[in-house]
Amino acid sequence: MVYKGKFITFEGPEGAGKTTVISKLFDFLKEEGWSVIITREPGGIRIAEKIRGIILDNEHVEMDAKTEALLYAAARRQHLVEKIIPALDKGFIVLCDRFIDSSLAYQGHARGLGIDEVLSINEFAIGNTIPDLTVFFDIDPEEGLARIAKNSDREKNRLDEEGMQFHRDVYNGYKELIHRYPDRIVVTDASLSQLQVIENVSEIISSRLI
Amino acid sequence: MVYKGKFITFEGPEGAGKTTVISKLFDFLKEEGWSVIITREPGGIRIAEKIRGIILDNEHVEMDAKTEALLYAAARRQHLVEKIIPALDKGFIVLCDRFIDSSLAYQGHARGLGIDEVLSINEFAIGNTIPDLTVFFDIDPEEGLARIAKNSDREKNRLDEEGMQFHRDVYNGYKELIHRYPDRIVVTDASLSQLQVIENVSEIISSRLI
Repeated sequence: MVYKGKFITFEGPEGAGKTTVISKLFDFLKEEGWSVIITREPGGIRIAEKIRGIILDNEHVEMDAKTEALLYAAARRQHLVEKIIPALDKGFIVLCDRFIDSSLAYQGHARGLGIDEVLSINEFAIGNTIPDLTVFFDIDPEEGLARIAKNSDREKNRLDEEGMQFHRDVYNGYKELIHRYPDRIVVTDASLSQLQVIENVSEIISSRLI
Repeated sequence: MVYKGKFITFEGPEGAGKTTVISKLFDFLKEEGWSVIITREPGGIRIAEKIRGIILDNEHVEMDAKTEALLYAAARRQHLVEKIIPALDKGFIVLCDRFIDSSLAYQGHARGLGIDEVLSINEFAIGNTIPDLTVFFDIDPEEGLARIAKNSDREKNRLDEEGMQFHRDVYNGYKELIHRYPDRIVVTDASLSQLQVIENVSEIISSRLI
């Protein structure tokens, strides 16, 4: 990697508890004196927000899987250029909730486009800004969805309405990525108590930052 | 190509007169008894229209060149799947005003992303639906822009506001594509009278259809 900062991404099935854990990590790293930002696609970048709006519109039932994959790559590119790269250049730790592996697992594996095919358009999008570390929140997809179901405030989008088989395929896609990128992707057991997960992920990150 | 129909695309610098000539060709082919449709991206496909709206919005000055290339590929994919492939499957001749070569010349060459890089994302987008024939309308880019300048009704978008050097680079990109794909791309002199251009292009197409 060519940046002063560190780029850390977080992946996993729906309902794995990433968002809460990342927020706690952010506080923890700041207290430790690190310069850190927290983000997730589309990251408040107006062009990326508009692209995301097209992807997640419940009315767009005719959307082709390849169109979807290209739109995710486009939104990713703009978010990267406007937000992630400038922060890394300044030496920040960037904590990003989902990144390239989500496209590889969701569109590449679960939608059947092929991990290598979706990788090729994402390599175009991200260039050499590969995450320094990716933490995979390992939870059975059924358990993840059961957690989400309890949270009735969460707004449903086009992807949430996929069936159980889709979410299981996503999970299997992640398993293939873990096998493919053993140095970059570290697995954490997300079925443990939240406190334990935070502790474990903090340890993983600390060991990589020192 | 795997379709019953024929896929013919038209390329060239701004103001080359493609649109008028394609419209006359459409009439000519229909009179000859062919089943033919005429289209151009985004082709009235609502998802592609929305993507195009993001690309061409004059306010989006922060748009990265790779984001732009990915959005064009996404809009192309949706237009292809919803409109071009179904027509080719039914045996229609599809006349399409601009297609993959525009991205290769504009984003690949003129924006400096590299023709091969932009080709890779477009190969993902179009799969094996390569045009059977591409007619390049050859006109000096200065002359093309001078023609457009006379037509004050035409609404200006973000791409029209590029400088002369950009349009010259686009032209040079096309020249490289003609060299690369000598079997697929046929050049026609677009500086001739409109009547002569129509006659020449009709001949090119007829010779490929019989």
